[in-house]
Amino acid sequence: MEYHFSNRINSVPPSSVGNVLKQMSDPTLISFAGGNPSPDSFPIADIQKISRELLENDPVGTLQYSVNEGYPPLVRRAADFLNRNETVIRESDELLITSGSMQIMEFTTKIFCNEGDVVLCETPSFMVALDSIRSNGARLIGIPLEKDGIDLAELEKRMAAKPAPKLIYLIPNFQNPTGITMSLEKRKAVYDLAVRYGVMILEDDPYGDLRFSGERVPSIKSLDREGVVIYAASLSKIISPGLRVACVVAPKPIYDKLKTAKSLNDIHNNVWSQRVCERILATCDMPAQIKRLSQIYGEKFSLAHQEMKKAFHPAVAYTHPEGGMFIWITLPEGADMPAFVAEALKQKVALVPGNAFYVESRLPCSSFRLSFSTPPREDIIKGIHILGELTYRFCR
Amino acid sequence: MEYHFSNRINSVPPSSVGNVLKQMSDPTLISFAGGNPSPDSFPIADIQKISRELLENDPVGTLQYSVNEGYPPLVRRAADFLNRNETVIRESDELLITSGSMQIMEFTTKIFCNEGDVVLCETPSFMVALDSIRSNGARLIGIPLEKDGIDLAELEKRMAAKPAPKLIYLIPNFQNPTGITMSLEKRKAVYDLAVRYGVMILEDDPYGDLRFSGERVPSIKSLDREGVVIYAASLSKIISPGLRVACVVAPKPIYDKLKTAKSLNDIHNNVWSQRVCERILATCDMPAQIKRLSQIYGEKFSLAHQEMKKAFHPAVAYTHPEGGMFIWITLPEGADMPAFVAEALKQKVALVPGNAFYVESRLPCSSFRLSFSTPPREDIIKGIHILGELTYRFCR
Repeated sequence: MEYHFSNRINSVPPSSVGNVLKQMSDPTLISFAGGNPSPDSFPIADIQKISRELLENDPVGTLQYSVNEGYPPLVRRAADFLNRNETVIRESDELLITSGSMQIMEFTTKIFCNEGDVVLCETPSFMVALDSIRSNGARLIGIPLEKDGIDLAELEKRMAAKPAPKLIYLIPNFQNPTGITMSLEKRKAVYDLAVRYGVMILEDDPYGDLRFSGERVPSIKSLDREGVVIYAASLSKIISPGLRVACVVAPKPIYDKLKTAKSLNDIHNNVWSQRVCERILATCDMPAQIKRLSQIYGEKFSLAHQEMKKAFHPAVAYTHPEGGMFIWITLPEGADMPAFVAEALKQKVALVPGNAFYVESRLPCSSFRLSFSTPPREDIIKGIHILGELTYRFCR
Repeated sequence: MEYHFSNRINSVPPSSVGNVLKQMSDPTLISFAGGNPSPDSFPIADIQKISRELLENDPVGTLQYSVNEGYPPLVRRAADFLNRNETVIRESDELLITSGSMQIMEFTTKIFCNEGDVVLCETPSFMVALDSIRSNGARLIGIPLEKDGIDLAELEKRMAAKPAPKLIYLIPNFQNPTGITMSLEKRKAVYDLAVRYGVMILEDDPYGDLRFSGERVPSIKSLDREGVVIYAASLSKIISPGLRVACVVAPKPIYDKLKTAKSLNDIHNNVWSQRVCERILATCDMPAQIKRLSQIYGEKFSLAHQEMKKAFHPAVAYTHPEGGMFIWITLPEGADMPAFVAEALKQKVALVPGNAFYVESRLPCSSFRLSFSTPPREDIIKGIHILGELTYRFCR
């Protein structure tokens, strides 16, 4: 039998996330490739206790079918949690629980885009989200990133173009892969453009709580009076990713469609993980947990940064994130990045080459993403010195 | 802001599964509406013990990201389990873990169908699966069911028509909603037609292990030498649905695309539930668990059947399933089914009206689906006698 696949799935380039996840589970590698949280960030003792109580006190409720929108007490806790610093969820909004954030990108594209509809995004941006959008038949157009976020002139040009874009996908905090944070001025300007041109904003904020320096910047969603922003938050980075619990906040009519998409995909999230998250949010000291995480990532970043300064060729440029998990490292133009990454892997250091994050992923790119979140201290030092030697071989 | 949604999500009728799930969680109702497993079927003590050991012995492995295709030991266990009676998985096939079966319908449609492509299905059939297929832009054409399965003459006519259908969606065992099992002769004939016309078969088998009478019929997948069958199995009905663990078996090139779709949706299943299922399959007496389930459902069916014979108006017809959870009950033509279901609900008995399961769901239908799986004995008796009185009011 010869198989004929759909245009939308054929539009997805060969998977890079699969390779990254496989590399992350190879213990012989120092992996700067994945965005895996640091294992010492997991609230293990709490989860052990909560899970035991849950399965003893309400096993049937934990093992039976539940409702599409998410376990109701978790929906309420998550809403309170998101609204603790600013108003993310207004009267006109609802919150839906999803199995990780990627479902939010998938469902949002699915409910808004017909085949060929345009979605704007930062370029570079998170490759898996871009592929998820592509796999729903949308056509991506990338808008370059500047030090303080997206290029506004280029964005307005693209928003004004015909056919009108349906969505813009943004990661304003500690962007993946660059670590860049969008300034408040730019957030306001992007919001105003979205309202003016009638383009929905999909604001992806998985790393917002992982700030280790500088000041918190309000979310675009908190500026939203017109109902143009869909806000994606995740518990993967602040509790644990293996639980696969995220949530999306959207104006009610959009929420209804997202809930339909959820009900036709996996019906509802795994109940155990929803109830574990609910109990964590209810009973744990979340400000302390977030502070602990920020310390862990802040220390790892400082270490990586300090070792890079020592070890890297002076022609290498890199970003200075104030939070999150990623540094974007750029060798001089023309450096052979595929060879650099292959050589690093030969020396047991895993990276993701920068071109994977671009909308035009076949163009040459002399950058790579370094994730400092997972490796322990000694591996960060060792790995960066291996990369440092390589920078001297590749910067000529 | 005025929202403009995609054609595919607008093609989905207002959700009925949401209502069913909400009704199932209302303790004041006798619910014959949902396909919820009987709570006494869950291996609670095993899950408590396994979960405790898992979170004590390998918390980080349980809470960290995992790989797209599923936790590798579960992939192997699930494959052995599916192959225990017949060869479901051949050398040329692979097995992918999904978050429930509905993801399999969603991903299969997504990877094969462009907007407007035709998918064939039995009619009536499982409404949520039909909506999942619709929501991916496919156009459904229903083929009537006979007592031993799909109408072959009509099927061949539709397979031969242009544009050629991409897929046919089938539930051969204890079909949802009718309880009908497709005969071996028809399975062979359907398989031959699929090969001749180059149409992929999506064989959905969530209930196959819940046989309480008659003889097992080989799956269509077990007949597959040409690689035209995608086989969907679920652990929801034999372990627990709250875990959201199912698996799909497909020829390698299709598996690769399904894995891509999975990686762009929720990256991978919740790890805890995958590892719980792996340990259940590894350490529990699964033949005994399945025998216990068959007894539970067989007793519930016999009770329902016996009470129906006593209580129902003689003009009411119903199917005689040999397994599964559903009986399809048909009042004389012209009976006002919306009023019947509304009246039943007023008397605290929940049902799903038959039209919801038809491709043309707006046409009148005098049938309803009765699920006997969830209510305890006394509720089955009480509920059926309430319905019995109603049948006398509605059969005139």
